[in-house]
Amino acid sequence: MLEQIAQGPLISKEEYAAQSPGVRVDLINAQYDLKSADFSVVLVIAGDDRVGIVEVVQLLHEWMDARHIETNIFEVPSDEELERPRFWRYWRGLPPKGKIGVFVAGWPLNAIGEHATGQIDDAGFSARLSHIRRFENALGTNGALVVKFWIHTPREAMKERLKRAKKDPKSNWQIEDVDWQLYEVFEKAGPHVETLLRETHTAIAPWQVIDGRDDRTRDLVLARALLDALVQRMKAPPPPGQVAAWPVEQIPDALGQVDLGAQIEDDEYDNRLEADQARLARLTRKARDCGQSTVLVFEGWDAAGKGGAIRRLTRAMAVRDYRVVPFAAPTEEERARHYLWRFWRQLPRAGHVLILDRSWYGRVLVERVEGFAKPEEWQRAYDEIVDFEVQLLEHGMLVRKFWLHIDPDEQFARFKAREHTLYKKYKITEEDYRNRDKWDAYVAAVNEMVARTHTPDAPWHLVPFNDKRYGRIQVLDTVCEALKSAVGKP
Amino acid sequence: MLEQIAQGPLISKEEYAAQSPGVRVDLINAQYDLKSADFSVVLVIAGDDRVGIVEVVQLLHEWMDARHIETNIFEVPSDEELERPRFWRYWRGLPPKGKIGVFVAGWPLNAIGEHATGQIDDAGFSARLSHIRRFENALGTNGALVVKFWIHTPREAMKERLKRAKKDPKSNWQIEDVDWQLYEVFEKAGPHVETLLRETHTAIAPWQVIDGRDDRTRDLVLARALLDALVQRMKAPPPPGQVAAWPVEQIPDALGQVDLGAQIEDDEYDNRLEADQARLARLTRKARDCGQSTVLVFEGWDAAGKGGAIRRLTRAMAVRDYRVVPFAAPTEEERARHYLWRFWRQLPRAGHVLILDRSWYGRVLVERVEGFAKPEEWQRAYDEIVDFEVQLLEHGMLVRKFWLHIDPDEQFARFKAREHTLYKKYKITEEDYRNRDKWDAYVAAVNEMVARTHTPDAPWHLVPFNDKRYGRIQVLDTVCEALKSAVGKP
Repeated sequence: MLEQIAQGPLISKEEYAAQSPGVRVDLINAQYDLKSADFSVVLVIAGDDRVGIVEVVQLLHEWMDARHIETNIFEVPSDEELERPRFWRYWRGLPPKGKIGVFVAGWPLNAIGEHATGQIDDAGFSARLSHIRRFENALGTNGALVVKFWIHTPREAMKERLKRAKKDPKSNWQIEDVDWQLYEVFEKAGPHVETLLRETHTAIAPWQVIDGRDDRTRDLVLARALLDALVQRMKAPPPPGQVAAWPVEQIPDALGQVDLGAQIEDDEYDNRLEADQARLARLTRKARDCGQSTVLVFEGWDAAGKGGAIRRLTRAMAVRDYRVVPFAAPTEEERARHYLWRFWRQLPRAGHVLILDRSWYGRVLVERVEGFAKPEEWQRAYDEIVDFEVQLLEHGMLVRKFWLHIDPDEQFARFKAREHTLYKKYKITEEDYRNRDKWDAYVAAVNEMVARTHTPDAPWHLVPFNDKRYGRIQVLDTVCEALKSAVGKP
Repeated sequence: MLEQIAQGPLISKEEYAAQSPGVRVDLINAQYDLKSADFSVVLVIAGDDRVGIVEVVQLLHEWMDARHIETNIFEVPSDEELERPRFWRYWRGLPPKGKIGVFVAGWPLNAIGEHATGQIDDAGFSARLSHIRRFENALGTNGALVVKFWIHTPREAMKERLKRAKKDPKSNWQIEDVDWQLYEVFEKAGPHVETLLRETHTAIAPWQVIDGRDDRTRDLVLARALLDALVQRMKAPPPPGQVAAWPVEQIPDALGQVDLGAQIEDDEYDNRLEADQARLARLTRKARDCGQSTVLVFEGWDAAGKGGAIRRLTRAMAVRDYRVVPFAAPTEEERARHYLWRFWRQLPRAGHVLILDRSWYGRVLVERVEGFAKPEEWQRAYDEIVDFEVQLLEHGMLVRKFWLHIDPDEQFARFKAREHTLYKKYKITEEDYRNRDKWDAYVAAVNEMVARTHTPDAPWHLVPFNDKRYGRIQVLDTVCEALKSAVGKP
C-alpha cells in the first residue's frame, strides 16, 4: 500500500525555490487566522523515517510561529503518567482552541513500538487501533482538526541512506545508531504499519502519506497539505458526525423500576452505618496499599442527598486517600478543549479514590435537557463516555456510578424545608422550583443514559433516596462490595 | 515557647455540645460566602501530633463542604516534582480564588523532617525558613488568606497516649508505629520547631498553636480560629504590605549605556551564526544528557526582534529539548491565582530549555506602565521575582534574561516597513503607534527592573538590536557561554 501511495514525482530545486516562500507566508497567515478560530489542530507527525520526522517538525517550528505550536514528545512515561490510563498523557497535551498541538510519533508509533517489542500481542494491537480510532474520532467530531502525516521512505532508499552515513558520517551527522535499529524494526513491522494506516484512516482523521526520499519534496508536500487542511477547515466546519443510536422505543424505564418506598429502621441504620464505615475504612486502606484506584460517579436530582451520601463515604476514608471534585460550569481553559478533558485531568493516582459530584454525564443530562449541547453532540457522547470508561477499566480502575432517585413530591417537600435552613448553600431559589417543570425530560434522559452506558464493569446503581438513610446504606454497601471484589477481603 | 502558648483551659463535653453546632453552621456559611470572594485560603495544618493533624483535617472535611476544599498531602515526591525546584509541588496545589487549599504538614513539616534526617544542615534549615517566609509573604500580600495551625501536644502527654495505645490497641487504633518514631523525632527536634515557629511567624502568615491534649478542645479552638480568620478577612482586606525599596535616585540609566550603533558585517554574521548554532547544538545536547535545565527570558520593545532572535536559537536545538512559551493575557484559571503561578506551572523538566517570550517581568513593565498593577503590587514584585529566580538557581537551573533594545526612530521605521509586510501577524495598528507615547515610562521601568533584579547568576543582558543581526549573535554567544559554564565543553 505504502509504496504505491508515496512515490509521486520529486520536486526540483528550482520549483522548491519558486514555491516555498509563498507557502511559508500562507502557512503563517493561516496560523494567525487560527488564533481567533473556534477549533484546535491536532497534528500527528509519525512515520518510518525518524530523521524525516525530526526535520519536518523542526521545519514547522521555523516556518510557523513556534510560540503558538505546542509540541508533545513522548519518551519514557513519568510515574505520574504510568499511574493513569495509557491515553492520559495524550489528553494532557491537547491544545486549546486557536493553537496547534504537534504530537511527534505519538499514539500511532507507540502502538507499533509496543507491538514490535512484544509488549502487546496481535489482539492487544488490534484493541489499541480501536482506541486510536475512537480517540481521534472523539477529538474530530468535537471540533478539533486532526491532521496526520506518515513520513515514508522505502526500505531500499533508507538502507542506502544509512550506508552512505556510515561511509561519510560528516555529511550525514543526523543518522544515529538508533536509525539502524529502527530500520530493523520497520523491516519486520511492515505489515503492522499497513494495518495501522488502514485501520486508523478515517474520514475525520485521515492519514496522508508523505514521500520521505527527498527533503525538498517531503517538506513542500507536507507544508502544502497542512496549509490545505487549515484553509479548508477555516472555510467550512466538517459536517456533524454520524451517530448510530439504538431505536428510542427500546429504552426501558429504569427509573420506574426503582422502589421509592424502600426504608430502613433507625436502629438498623445506625448499626449498618457503623459496620459499613469500618469495613470501608479497611477496604480503602487495602486499596491504597495495592495501588487500586477507584472512580465513583454521583448524579441525581437536586436535593436527592448527594452531599450527605458522599460525606458518609469520606468519613470512613483517610483524607490522603480520596478527593471529592464537584463539577459545575467549566473554566475557560476547559471550555477551550474537548468536554472530557477536564475529567481526564482529574483522574486519580494509584491507590486513590476520586469521587465526582456530577460528572461527564452532564453532557447527556443537563446539557441535553437545557439545550447546551446539540442533539448530535449529546447523542454521540454515549459512545465517547463508554470508551472513556473502558480505558479507566483497562487500566485497572474500579468504576461505579450512582443515580440518587427521589420523586417530585419528595423533592418539593425538601425544597420547602430548606427555606428554613440555616445553611446558606442549601437556600432554594425560584430557579430551583422552575427546574421541576423539566422533570419528565430528565426522566427520559436518565433512562437513556442508563440504557446506553450501563456496562458490567462500570454499572449504574439507581438508588432510592426518598428515605435518605436507606439510600446511604445502599451506596456504602455497593462501594464496599465493589472494593472487596477488586482487592479481596482486608 | 510552645508549652506556655498552648495550654489554656480545656473545653468540657457540655460546652462542646452547646457550642459546636453554631460554629459548624457559621463555618459552612463562611465557606459559602468565600465562593464569591476575591481571595483564596491557604490553610496549613502542621504540628508535632500526627494523629491530631489527621483528625483535624478529617473534621474540616466533615464540618465544611468537602467539594470546595482542595487537600494537598505531600508524600514521596514524583519524578516530575523532583525535576523542579522544591516549592513547585506547593505552587502546583495552590487553590483558586473562592476555594480553600489545605496543606497537610506541608512546607513547615518537610523542613523539620529534612533537618531531622540530616538532609539539610543548620544553614540549609535557616535558608529554608527564609524561603518559607518569602513564599507565604508572596501569597499573603498578593491576596491569599494564609492560616497556619500548629497542633501541639506536650511530650509527656504524648508519651502517655502512646503507652496507653500499646496496652489497649483497640481503643487507640489510630496510633501506629510511625507515631513512636515521630515522638523520637520531635523529642530531638524541639528547639528547631521553636525556631521554625518563631522565624516563620509573620503578620501576614501567623502561626496559631493549638493545644492537642484534648480532642474537643483542639477541634473547637481550631474551628473557631479558622472561622474568625475567614470572617475577619471577608470584612476587611489586609492593609497593603510594606515595601522596602531603594531610593529611586540611585537607579542607573542602564539602557542609556547600550551602544545602539553596534553593527556586524554580512560575512562575519554568516560565519558566526553558523559557528554559534553548531556550538549551541552540541551544548544543548550535552545539557540534555546531564539533566541541566535552562530558562531564557526574552523581553524587549515591540518590533525589537524577539521572534527572530528566538528562532535563531531554536534552529540549533532538537525540538524535544526546548519549549517556547509566549505570555500574553493570563487565562481565567491563572487570573484566579498568584501572578507567578502561571510561570511556575511551565517550568521545564530536567535537561530541557524553556524560552519565555515575555515573562514574569510583565509585572514591573507593562502592568506597571499601563496601571494594571497597583504601585505596591509592582514594587514588591521585584523581591518576589528575585526570590523565585533564586529558587530556580538553587535547583540548579541556568537562568539568563535578555532585554532587546532599539531606539524610537528604529521602531518607527520598522512599524512603517511592516505596513507592507505579507505576514498578518506583523500588521501594525494605531494602538502600536499610540504605545510609543509611553516610551519614557518604559525606559524608567526597564532601568528600575535591571537595577533591582540583575543578580550574578540570573543576569540581565541589554542587547542592542538596531542592527538585528548584531543582536542575534550577542544572544547566541551569551547563551553558549552560559551553557558552557554550566555543563563544560561538549
